Amino acid sequence: MIPIGVDCMGGDFGPDVVLPACESFLAQCPDASLMLVGQDAHSARLVHPRATWVSASEVVAMDDPVEVALRRKKDSSMRVALELLKSAKVAAVVSAGNTGALMAIARYVLKTLEGIDRPAIAALIPNARSEATTVLDMGANVDCQPTHLLQFAIMGAALVSVLSGKTHPTVGLLNIGEEAIKGNEVIKKTAEWLREAAAAGVLNFHGNVEGNDIFRGTVDLVVCDGFVGNVALKSSEGLARMISDSLRAEFSRNVYTRLAGALAYPVLRSLRQRVDHRRYNGAPLLGLRGLVFKSHGSADSFAFTNALLQAYHAARNQLLERLTEHIAQATPFLGRLDTSPATRAASQSPLVA
Amino acid sequence: MIPIGVDCMGGDFGPDVVLPACESFLAQCPDASLMLVGQDAHSARLVHPRATWVSASEVVAMDDPVEVALRRKKDSSMRVALELLKSAKVAAVVSAGNTGALMAIARYVLKTLEGIDRPAIAALIPNARSEATTVLDMGANVDCQPTHLLQFAIMGAALVSVLSGKTHPTVGLLNIGEEAIKGNEVIKKTAEWLREAAAAGVLNFHGNVEGNDIFRGTVDLVVCDGFVGNVALKSSEGLARMISDSLRAEFSRNVYTRLAGALAYPVLRSLRQRVDHRRYNGAPLLGLRGLVFKSHGSADSFAFTNALLQAYHAARNQLLERLTEHIAQATPFLGRLDTSPATRAASQSPLVA
Repeated sequence: MIPIGVDCMGGDFGPDVVLPACESFLAQCPDASLMLVGQDAHSARLVHPRATWVSASEVVAMDDPVEVALRRKKDSSMRVALELLKSAKVAAVVSAGNTGALMAIARYVLKTLEGIDRPAIAALIPNARSEATTVLDMGANVDCQPTHLLQFAIMGAALVSVLSGKTHPTVGLLNIGEEAIKGNEVIKKTAEWLREAAAAGVLNFHGNVEGNDIFRGTVDLVVCDGFVGNVALKSSEGLARMISDSLRAEFSRNVYTRLAGALAYPVLRSLRQRVDHRRYNGAPLLGLRGLVFKSHGSADSFAFTNALLQAYHAARNQLLERLTEHIAQATPFLGRLDTSPATRAASQSPLVA
Repeated sequence: MIPIGVDCMGGDFGPDVVLPACESFLAQCPDASLMLVGQDAHSARLVHPRATWVSASEVVAMDDPVEVALRRKKDSSMRVALELLKSAKVAAVVSAGNTGALMAIARYVLKTLEGIDRPAIAALIPNARSEATTVLDMGANVDCQPTHLLQFAIMGAALVSVLSGKTHPTVGLLNIGEEAIKGNEVIKKTAEWLREAAAAGVLNFHGNVEGNDIFRGTVDLVVCDGFVGNVALKSSEGLARMISDSLRAEFSRNVYTRLAGALAYPVLRSLRQRVDHRRYNGAPLLGLRGLVFKSHGSADSFAFTNALLQAYHAARNQLLERLTEHIAQATPFLGRLDTSPATRAASQSPLVA
C-alpha cells in the first residue's frame, strides 16, 4: 500500500476540488491509500476504506505572506501534511496551496538535500518531439543567483535521468538569445559555471536556449529563475486556452463550420489533449528530503487527480532515493565551487545590478 | 511621400529577406519611399524609382557585443540608418538587427525623450477579446529597476492611447500571482509606485497580472522587464508553432483526416492567421526622439514587410509627436518621484538582492 498525504484545504477551491479528485484517484489506484488533512467540518465529505482523515485546525490562505504561514499557522493542513511526510506516515504529499508557503514550510519541516540551498519546482511541458521538456524553476524562487541556477541544473538533470532513463540529458539555460553575450549578469555567470560543470563531466550543457526551445524540445532540461519560468508557463497556458476557445467558437459559427468541426473532432481532440496543461498537473519540489508535489492553485478535479497520480508513481518508483543518489554524485563539484572565495562572493552578491 | 530608412544588413538573413520585403512594401504603399542602407555589394539587388541606396561599409553582427557595435562600427548599416533619422532624411527606421545594439545606437544617436531613462520595445499580442494586448519591455532592458518599469508603464499607456483612442487604458504589472505580496522586490516596489501614479491620476493601474492575462486581454497594457517579456513572447511563439505543426501533421495522417482537414481549412486558416506572430512583426522602440521599429531577427520577407508597414503607418499618423505629448503630461509625476531621496535611492540600488 502506498500512502499519500493530501492538503485538502489548499488551492483556489479547497475541498470542493480536492475531495472529488481523491475519490477518483482511489478508484484508479487500488494499492494507494490517502491521509486527508483538513478542517474537521469537511471530514464527512469523503468516506473510503483507504482514506483516513487527519485533523488540522488552520488553513494557509492563497495570499498569506510566507512568514504568517510558517510561523503563525502551525496547525495548517499544509504543515500537518508535511509533518506526516517527515515522520514517514506517508510516502509523498500533494498540495494546491500557496506556492511560497508550501516551499517555505517544506524546507523548514523536511530540510534540503546535501549541497542544495533552495528547492525548485520542476514542470514537464509537452514538446514538438512528442516528449516532454522539463523546466525548472517554475515559481518557487523569484530571485536566483548563479549558485541556485547551477543547483537547479543538477537536480533537474537528475530528475530527467531517473524519469526518462537518459544518462546524459541535455541542459539549456533560458536566455533571450543563443549568443553567450546575451542576458543579464546572473545568466552570464551561470552559463560560465554550467560550462565548468560540463567540462568536469557533471552535466551535459547545451548552451543558451530561448523561450520557443521549450516547445521545440531542443534540450531535455531548461533551467531558469522561478519568476521567468512561471511567466513562460502561464503565458503558454493562456495562449493554449485562447486557441482552444477560438477553435470552439469558429467551429460553431454556422452549419457548415459545425459539420467541418464534427469531422475534424477526433483530430482536434487529440491536439487538445496534447496541450491540455491539466494532464501535466503535479510538479515535484526538487531538493527536499521528501516527495512533495505542487498542484496548480486553480486546478479542477481532473487536474488534481493527475497531481495525485504523479505523487503516487514517484513514490512507487522510489524517485526520492534515486534522485538523492544522482545529486550526491554531483555535490563534490558544488563543494569545489563553494571553496573559492571569489566565486562564492559572486554567487551571493546581487549580480543583477 | 513618406520616407522610411531600412537597415538592409540586419537580422539572421540580411538582404536576402529585407530586399524582397522592401519590394513588396513599395508595391503596397505608393506614397512611401525607402532609403536602403547597406554594403554596396547588394545595391544592385533592388532598383526602384522610390528606393535610394545609401552606402554603409560595416555590419553589426547578431552576436556583436553592444560596445563593439556602438564604438567600433561607426559606419554600420544600423548606425547610418539611424543617422538618417536623426537628420530627418527619413521619418522612421526599421531594423532586424541585434536588439541590444539597435537600442544602444538609437539611444546614442537620437537621445531619449524628457523624463525617460531607458527606451523599451513594445509588442502587440493578439488576445481572446479580438483586440491586442500591448506588452513592454520585450527585450531591450534585461535588468530593470522600479523607476524603469514605471516609465515603461507611462510610455506604454501613451502608445495604447494614441493607437486605440482609449483615454485611460488599463495597466497591469506582470507578476507570478495576483496578490500584492507576490513577486520579487523590484516588482513589489514597482507596484507601490504604480499605485501612487494611479492615485495621482497619471495611470489607470489594474494591479498585478499573470502570464495568461496577456492572452486573456485582462488589461490593455502589460508592463514587465525585458528578459521576462522576451521569454513570454518566445515561449508563446514556440507553442503556437507546435500547435500549428501538429495540426498539419494530424490532418495529413490518412484519407479521412485529409478530408476533415480540407473541410476545416477555412476555420483553421483564420485561426492560424490570428496567432501568426509574423503579422505582428515590427515593434516600436518607445522613449526615443525618433520612430525606430525592431523586426524579429528571424523574420521572413512577409514578416519584415509587416514591420515596414508598421513604421509607415506610425510615421503617417505622427505617432512620435502624439506620444511625446502624452509622455510630457506624465513627466511632472516622474520628476516628483525623483526628488525624494529615499525612493530615488531605492530605484537605483539593486533591489533584487
